[in-house]
Amino acid sequence: MKGFGAIAPNNVGWMEKDRPVCGPMDAIIRPLAVAPCSSDTHASHGGSGPLDHVILGHEAVGEVVEVGNLVKNFKPGDVVVVPCCTPDWTEKNMQQRGANNAHDAGLMKSFKLLGSWDGVFAEFFKINQADANLVLKPENVSIESALMTVDMMSTGFYGVEMADVQFGETVVVFGIGPVGLMAVAGTALRGAGRIFATGSRPNCVELAKEYGATDIINYKNGDVVEQILALNGGQVDRVIIAGGDCSTMTQALCLVKPNGTIASINFYDATDSFAYPAYLWGLGMSDVTIKGGFCPGGAYRIEKLLNLIANKRIDPSKLLNYKFEGFEKIEDAFKVMDEKPRDLIKPIVYINWD
Amino acid sequence: MKGFGAIAPNNVGWMEKDRPVCGPMDAIIRPLAVAPCSSDTHASHGGSGPLDHVILGHEAVGEVVEVGNLVKNFKPGDVVVVPCCTPDWTEKNMQQRGANNAHDAGLMKSFKLLGSWDGVFAEFFKINQADANLVLKPENVSIESALMTVDMMSTGFYGVEMADVQFGETVVVFGIGPVGLMAVAGTALRGAGRIFATGSRPNCVELAKEYGATDIINYKNGDVVEQILALNGGQVDRVIIAGGDCSTMTQALCLVKPNGTIASINFYDATDSFAYPAYLWGLGMSDVTIKGGFCPGGAYRIEKLLNLIANKRIDPSKLLNYKFEGFEKIEDAFKVMDEKPRDLIKPIVYINWD
Amino acid sequence: MKGFGAIAPNNVGWMEKDRPVCGPMDAIIRPLAVAPCSSDTHASHGGSGPLDHVILGHEAVGEVVEVGNLVKNFKPGDVVVVPCCTPDWTEKNMQQRGANNAHDAGLMKSFKLLGSWDGVFAEFFKINQADANLVLKPENVSIESALMTVDMMSTGFYGVEMADVQFGETVVVFGIGPVGLMAVAGTALRGAGRIFATGSRPNCVELAKEYGATDIINYKNGDVVEQILALNGGQVDRVIIAGGDCSTMTQALCLVKPNGTIASINFYDATDSFAYPAYLWGLGMSDVTIKGGFCPGGAYRIEKLLNLIANKRIDPSKLLNYKFEGFEKIEDAFKVMDEKPRDLIKPIVYINWD
Amino acid sequence: MKGFGAIAPNNVGWMEKDRPVCGPMDAIIRPLAVAPCSSDTHASHGGSGPLDHVILGHEAVGEVVEVGNLVKNFKPGDVVVVPCCTPDWTEKNMQQRGANNAHDAGLMKSFKLLGSWDGVFAEFFKINQADANLVLKPENVSIESALMTVDMMSTGFYGVEMADVQFGETVVVFGIGPVGLMAVAGTALRGAGRIFATGSRPNCVELAKEYGATDIINYKNGDVVEQILALNGGQVDRVIIAGGDCSTMTQALCLVKPNGTIASINFYDATDSFAYPAYLWGLGMSDVTIKGGFCPGGAYRIEKLLNLIANKRIDPSKLLNYKFEGFEKIEDAFKVMDEKPRDLIKPIVYINWD
Repeated sequence: MKGFGAIAPNNVGWMEKDRPVCGPMDAIIRPLAVAPCSSDTHASHGGSGPLDHVILGHEAVGEVVEVGNLVKNFKPGDVVVVPCCTPDWTEKNMQQRGANNAHDAGLMKSFKLLGSWDGVFAEFFKINQADANLVLKPENVSIESALMTVDMMSTGFYGVEMADVQFGETVVVFGIGPVGLMAVAGTALRGAGRIFATGSRPNCVELAKEYGATDIINYKNGDVVEQILALNGGQVDRVIIAGGDCSTMTQALCLVKPNGTIASINFYDATDSFAYPAYLWGLGMSDVTIKGGFCPGGAYRIEKLLNLIANKRIDPSKLLNYKFEGFEKIEDAFKVMDEKPRDLIKPIVYINWD
Repeated sequence: MKGFGAIAPNNVGWMEKDRPVCGPMDAIIRPLAVAPCSSDTHASHGGSGPLDHVILGHEAVGEVVEVGNLVKNFKPGDVVVVPCCTPDWTEKNMQQRGANNAHDAGLMKSFKLLGSWDGVFAEFFKINQADANLVLKPENVSIESALMTVDMMSTGFYGVEMADVQFGETVVVFGIGPVGLMAVAGTALRGAGRIFATGSRPNCVELAKEYGATDIINYKNGDVVEQILALNGGQVDRVIIAGGDCSTMTQALCLVKPNGTIASINFYDATDSFAYPAYLWGLGMSDVTIKGGFCPGGAYRIEKLLNLIANKRIDPSKLLNYKFEGFEKIEDAFKVMDEKPRDLIKPIVYINWD
Repeated sequence: MKGFGAIAPNNVGWMEKDRPVCGPMDAIIRPLAVAPCSSDTHASHGGSGPLDHVILGHEAVGEVVEVGNLVKNFKPGDVVVVPCCTPDWTEKNMQQRGANNAHDAGLMKSFKLLGSWDGVFAEFFKINQADANLVLKPENVSIESALMTVDMMSTGFYGVEMADVQFGETVVVFGIGPVGLMAVAGTALRGAGRIFATGSRPNCVELAKEYGATDIINYKNGDVVEQILALNGGQVDRVIIAGGDCSTMTQALCLVKPNGTIASINFYDATDSFAYPAYLWGLGMSDVTIKGGFCPGGAYRIEKLLNLIANKRIDPSKLLNYKFEGFEKIEDAFKVMDEKPRDLIKPIVYINWD
Repeated sequence: MKGFGAIAPNNVGWMEKDRPVCGPMDAIIRPLAVAPCSSDTHASHGGSGPLDHVILGHEAVGEVVEVGNLVKNFKPGDVVVVPCCTPDWTEKNMQQRGANNAHDAGLMKSFKLLGSWDGVFAEFFKINQADANLVLKPENVSIESALMTVDMMSTGFYGVEMADVQFGETVVVFGIGPVGLMAVAGTALRGAGRIFATGSRPNCVELAKEYGATDIINYKNGDVVEQILALNGGQVDRVIIAGGDCSTMTQALCLVKPNGTIASINFYDATDSFAYPAYLWGLGMSDVTIKGGFCPGGAYRIEKLLNLIANKRIDPSKLLNYKFEGFEKIEDAFKVMDEKPRDLIKPIVYINWD
C-alpha cells in the first residue's frame, strides 16, 4: 500500500509498504479525513530521533475495514474517530491511580501511531485494542469537528486539566497555534475569568478571542511578561504553555503566583534545556507546581470531547482553514504544515475512496 | 434602628433593635440592595429551630459606614459585596486542608448573618473580619449581578465543585429555583456535555435552557428517573441536588453510575429523614460518593465569581424578575419569596438612602 | 474437575464441572493456598442473589498451568498471587480518571471470580488478562502474607484510601474482623494519630492493638457512639465502616465532624436499608462525605501491597489463625468461616498437589 | 531585652532591642527551649538577603507572658508549641482552596519570625493571631519532641504530602539532615514500601534506618543516580529533595518515572540556578510533576503532628543530639549549627528562667 512519511531525516515522501496485519484485538482502518500536525513535521526533521521509512500522521477519522476476532464493538464499515494516543490498557503502569495513560510501557509508549508502527497517512493503518481505543463517530458531530478532538482538543484540554483551572481564575496561555487555541477554549469552558493569550497571527488572534481570550498579548508590543503583569496588576493564577521553547518556562515562572500552577503541553526540542534562576521559583519555597505531559488517549476521553461538540459547547472545526481533497493531497497539506504560512491555523485532507 | 425578621415562629414583621456595635475587625454596613432567600422564609417557619426577634436576610450589597480600628482595606463610603457566609478565619478548623470554610467553630457556624447575629434586612448590619470577608464592588459589575454572587451563585457553583464535573460529562440537576439555575449555569461553565434539569415553572425552564440545560424534565410527564434514564440511555456521571426533599437522594442514587458523585446543596427539613435501600448504593459497593454542604464564604471566592461576571462568562442578574424599591418594601419581597408565585424566580429590593 | 461451592441457596458442597477453557489472554491456575471469605458464605446464603452450581472462592495463591497465546509475562510453573478482583482493562469505563476499577462493564463486574465464572475452590480456575491481573509471588513474601493481600489487605486499605486519612488524624474503624483489622493496620500505616476500633472478640482485639488501634470500644460497655465521643472529647475526623449493617452508617454520622469522611467497605444485605434523620447530616449542610466501594483489582495494586510486606511495613499473615491442609479441607474451612467460632480470625487452606 | 542574631551579613552576635509590643490578637512568649536551624545560619550569611540587627531563631517551645485583649484561648503561664510559620489567617490569599498557607500576603510572608519581626533567640518574642497559631503543649509529649514538630517534622512531612506518597511505592529522599530524616520518617509513616535515602554521616545514616529507610546511598560509593537505578532495577515513583542544590533537581529527574512526582523542601541559594536538558523531562511529555514549597504553618497542623507523637507513631526527639543549657548558650548552639560537625544532627538549647 501507499503511505506518506519520513524516508530519512529531512526527507519526506511517498513510500510503498505492506498493509498492516490485523491482530486479534486490532482494527484496520482506512482514513476518511486526516490532519497533519506539527509533531509530524517536527519528527520529519529528526526532532525526536532519526526516522527511516516511517509513515507519519496520527490525526484521523476513518472507516473500519477489518477487525480482529476478539473485537466486540466494531465491524467493517463503521466510521470511527481515532485517538492519536492508543494505549495498551493491559500494561500494569496503566493501573496507577490518576496517572496519564500516555505512558503505557514507558515514556510516551502509548503513542503507537508515531513510535510503534506506521501512521495514518496511508491507505490503511492499524489500531490496537479497538474496543478500548475507537469511538463510533456520532451522527450529530461533523467529520471536521470529530477530527479535531483526537489531538488538538485532547491536548489543549489536557493543559487545562493539568493547570487545574478553577472558577473565575486568571490564566495565561502561551501560544495560539491550534493546540493553544484549544487550550484557550478549554480554559474558558472550564470557568476561568480573565484569559491572556500570547500571539500575533491575525487569524489566530481572531479565533483566540472567539474561543474566550479576553486579552491578546503580542510580543511586538514589548516584553510579554511585563505586558501581562502591568495589565493584570500582578501575577496570575495559572499558566498553560502551548508554544515556545524552554525559555517560555522562565517566563511562566515570572508570571505565576505562589501556590499557582504551570502546565506545559509543549513539545521541547531534544537539544533544548531549561535554565532558570532559583529565585524565580522562590528559592524552592513558592509552592508553584510545574506539570507537563502528553496527550492522553483512549475512547472514553474522546467520547467526552465529542459530547461537548454534540451539545454545542464548542466548535473546534473553526481551526481548519486549509482544506485539501484527495489522498494524494496529504503531501501538500504536510508541506503547508511544515512551512506554516502566516494565515495557516490547521489543515485537513478529505479522502474520498469512491 | 429598624429591621425586618422573625418575631416568633410563623410570625414575621418589623422590629426595633440597637444598631450593632463595631468590633476592632468589623465593619458596619447599610444595605443598598438585598434579596430575600428561601433560607430566610424557611427559618421564619422554624425550619432550623425557633427564632425570637431575629432580623433576617443574608444577601446584600451595601455601603460601609464604620470600620474597626484593625480594618486595613475598607473605609466608610466603600460599596461592598457581602458574602452570606463570613467565617472567623482564625478558628483552627479553618486550617484543615480542603475543608469547606462554612464550619468555623462547628456546623454552619460561619453563617453569622443567620445564627450569630442579626441579618441584612436592617438599617445597619455587622460583618466580622471585614478585610477577609468583604469585596469592593467592581465598577464593571452591576449591583444586581453582584448581589447574586453572595449566595445563589456561590451555592449553586459549590454544587458543581462538589460534584467534580469533568469535561463532557452528563449531569442531572434537581431543581431550577435560583440556586438550581446557578448550578445549571455552573455545570455548563465547568465544561459538562449534556445537562438534564428537572422543573416545570415556565420562567425557570426558559432560564435553565439559557444557562445551558440541554434537557428539561417535567415531573408532570411521568417519573423523573425513568424519563432521564430513557432519554440518556442509562445512568449519568453526576447528580446535583438543588431542590426537593430527602426522597430526592433516593432518585439521585437511581440515576448515577458506579464511580459517580451526588452533590447536595439542598437544605433538608429538620423533620425529614433519608431512607433508601442498600441495593441502590450497590450494597455499599458502588463507589458512588455522596457529598452535601453549605455555601462557602469569604472574600476570595466572591472575587472569583465577580471575575466571571466582569469577563462576561455569566449574567446571574437574569434571576431577578421581581423588583422592589425602598427599605420598607423588604416586607413585600419577603412575602413574595414566602408565597412563591408561579412566575417568581428571585426578588430584589433596592434601598435608596438619600 | 472437582470444586466446592453453592449448589443451591443455603446448600453448599462439592461438585464436578468442566475444567475452564483458556482464552488467548487468560491463564489457568491451580490453587496452592486459598482462604474462604465472608463474601463466599454470604453468597452461599443468597445474600447477593440465588446461586446454582457455582464454585466459590476468590482468595488464592496458585501455580500457572496454562496460558493463552497472547500472554507475555507468565508461563506454566509460575507461582502467582491472584487479585480477587480482575478487571477487563479494555472496558471503556476503566478509562475514567480516578475511578475504582472494580466496575469494568458495570457494578462490580470486575469481580469475575464471583459473578462471571467459577471461583478458586477448584482444581483449576481461570484468570482473564493474565498480564494485567497476575503477580509473580516475590521470594521474600510468604505464601500466607501474599494470600492476605488479594482481598483482606486490598479491601481494608481501600477503606483507608477512601477515608483519605491525613497525618495525625483521629479515625474510628467499625469492625475488627479480618478486613477491619487490615483497615486498622492501613490507618496506622497511613499516618493516623488516635485510632478507635470497635469489637469484642479477644483474638481480634489483641491483633487490633498490635496493628495500631489505640482504643478498643466494646459494645458491651455501653453505646459505642457515646463511648467514643466521651473518650475523644467530641467528634472524629474519619470513620471507616468495616462491619455492621445499615444502622452503622447512622452511628458513623453521629461520630464524624463537619468536613469529615465516612468510608464504607462493608457489604450490606440486599434486604437492608439506610435510614437516618437529615439532622445527622447537618440538614445536608455538614460537608460530611460518604463513600463506599468494592475492593479494587489488578496486578499493580497487589504489587504495591506486596512491597509493603517485603519491606517489613506490615505482616498480614497474623490474621491466619485457622490452618487446614489438603484440597478436601476447603469444606471444613468454609464451614468454619460460615459458623465463625469466637476465636476465628481468618482460615487458610494449604493445597499440596504432589 | 537581649537577643542573638545577625548584626550584619556574616556577623552574628548578641544585641539589645526593645521588648516586642503585644497587639490585640498577639501573644508575647518567652522561650523554654529553642533550636537553631540551617535557615538561621543561611540567613546570617545573607542567603536570603542582607540582615541588619535582626534577632534570629524560629523553632521554640515557650511560656506565654502576655496576650492581647482579643485572644480567647491562651493566658500567661501557658506552655505553648510555636509553629515556625504563623500566617495572618485573614489575608485573602489564605482562602484559596488547597493552597499552602505559607504565603499569606505573598511569597513566604507567613514566615513572620524570619522576615516580619524578630525571632525566638530572645528573652521575649511575639506571635500574631495567637488563637490560630499557638498550641498548648500536651502533657504526654516531651518538650524535645514538641520542639521538633514546629519546623523539622512539619517541613519534612510536607515533602511527603507534596510527593503524594501512596501505599507501597518506592521513594527516594535526598538528604538526611534533620529535615531529610523527618521526610524519611514521614514517608514510612505514610505507607511507602522501599525508601532510598542519600547520605554519609554515620549518625544520620543510623537514624535514617531507624526512621524507615531501607537503603542508604552514599555518594562515596559512586554516582548516586546510578546506584539507585541499579539497586531498584529502574526508576522510582517519587523523589523528595531535602538537601543538595539546584543540580539535585537534575538527579531527581533522572530517577523518577513518567507520572511520578518530585517534591522539594530544599532552600536553594539565591545565586543558584536550575539547568536541565529538556529530554530529562521527556521533552515536556513525561507527566512528571515538580513541586516545591515552604513549611506550612498554624496550630491545626502542629496539633496533628503532636497527635502522632502522643500516640507513639514517631519519636522526633531522636534528632536532638547536641544539648545546651542556658539562654546564653544559644550562641554556642548557633555556632554548632553553622559549623556542622560531622556528628551533629540537631542542637537544642534549654532555657531555665528560674
